[in-house]
Amino acid sequence: MPYIDVPNVPGIRALLAFRPEMAEPLAGLANALLHAPNSLSPGDRELIAAYVSHLNQCTFCCESHAAVAACHLHDEALVDATLADPQTARISPKMRELLALAARVQLSGRAVSQEDVARAQREGATDVEIHDTVLIAAAFCMFNRYVDGLGALTPTDRDAYRERAAQTASEGYRMSAPTA
Amino acid sequence: MPYIDVPNVPGIRALLAFRPEMAEPLAGLANALLHAPNSLSPGDRELIAAYVSHLNQCTFCCESHAAVAACHLHDEALVDATLADPQTARISPKMRELLALAARVQLSGRAVSQEDVARAQREGATDVEIHDTVLIAAAFCMFNRYVDGLGALTPTDRDAYRERAAQTASEGYRMSAPTA
Repeated sequence: MPYIDVPNVPGIRALLAFRPEMAEPLAGLANALLHAPNSLSPGDRELIAAYVSHLNQCTFCCESHAAVAACHLHDEALVDATLADPQTARISPKMRELLALAARVQLSGRAVSQEDVARAQREGATDVEIHDTVLIAAAFCMFNRYVDGLGALTPTDRDAYRERAAQTASEGYRMSAPTA
Repeated sequence: MPYIDVPNVPGIRALLAFRPEMAEPLAGLANALLHAPNSLSPGDRELIAAYVSHLNQCTFCCESHAAVAACHLHDEALVDATLADPQTARISPKMRELLALAARVQLSGRAVSQEDVARAQREGATDVEIHDTVLIAAAFCMFNRYVDGLGALTPTDRDAYRERAAQTASEGYRMSAPTA
């Protein structure tokens, strides 16, 4: 039950329908971070978003972005295994270090050290990839707080997330009128 | 010393110069939250931004937004007193509750309760003001992590922040080519 009087749709969609002035910059940011062309695949970037949301215990964002990651990677089991433990999941050493970096950012910007960044660089991460990993992790520390801080509706049925994820994976994030 | 190779300018400006694709949505978000017309004054909204940055120990964002708040409120001592202790500062009961709500969001979205929101409502806060307080606090949990998570340059001289603040207070946040 949301803490303020917003339209009866799930998650962030209710908040953006209530306050449409914020929809364009927030959708633009999500699209630039997660969907725009990048040397990190959309699947890997969605995995970083889902992992940070998992660490913040934000079910709506975690399920939403895990479902989009699974669409891109064609592997829901890999996504679940990565969220459960990036150290043992079948992901690249570079992704393992980028997820470790994201976990430091989730704690605090001040928790990140030059050595955390250097470890990712030694596995081949470029400066743009490091920048984007830090900003994706930071942005989900915002989105997670926005959604849970206003008590937004969180569907419990995974199918609800799967259905929407296919559209997001193909079309990206846009400012569109949320539908009930 | 930044952790990746970015232009030699302070704070977030270096990061946006390195990755200009992110400048438009981030500046658009800051402008919608802090500068656009709102029943909460720009000074009060900048105070929320500075307070959350203070809680996150992000010196660059705290000094930047404290300086903009002081420009709007024409009272640097009030800004300093509020950052030090909102409970005893000469601010309105509504602002005291909105800052308390922002402090919950800084901890976690899940730390916010219906009662935290109800306390602000009892002091006269509208749903839009509550929404915007939560999103400002959440957004600064992003900006603070972005700036400190990449080790951005942080000037130590307050005059450096004061100078720039006057321009931001009058013109707002725009995507502009950062200058060295």
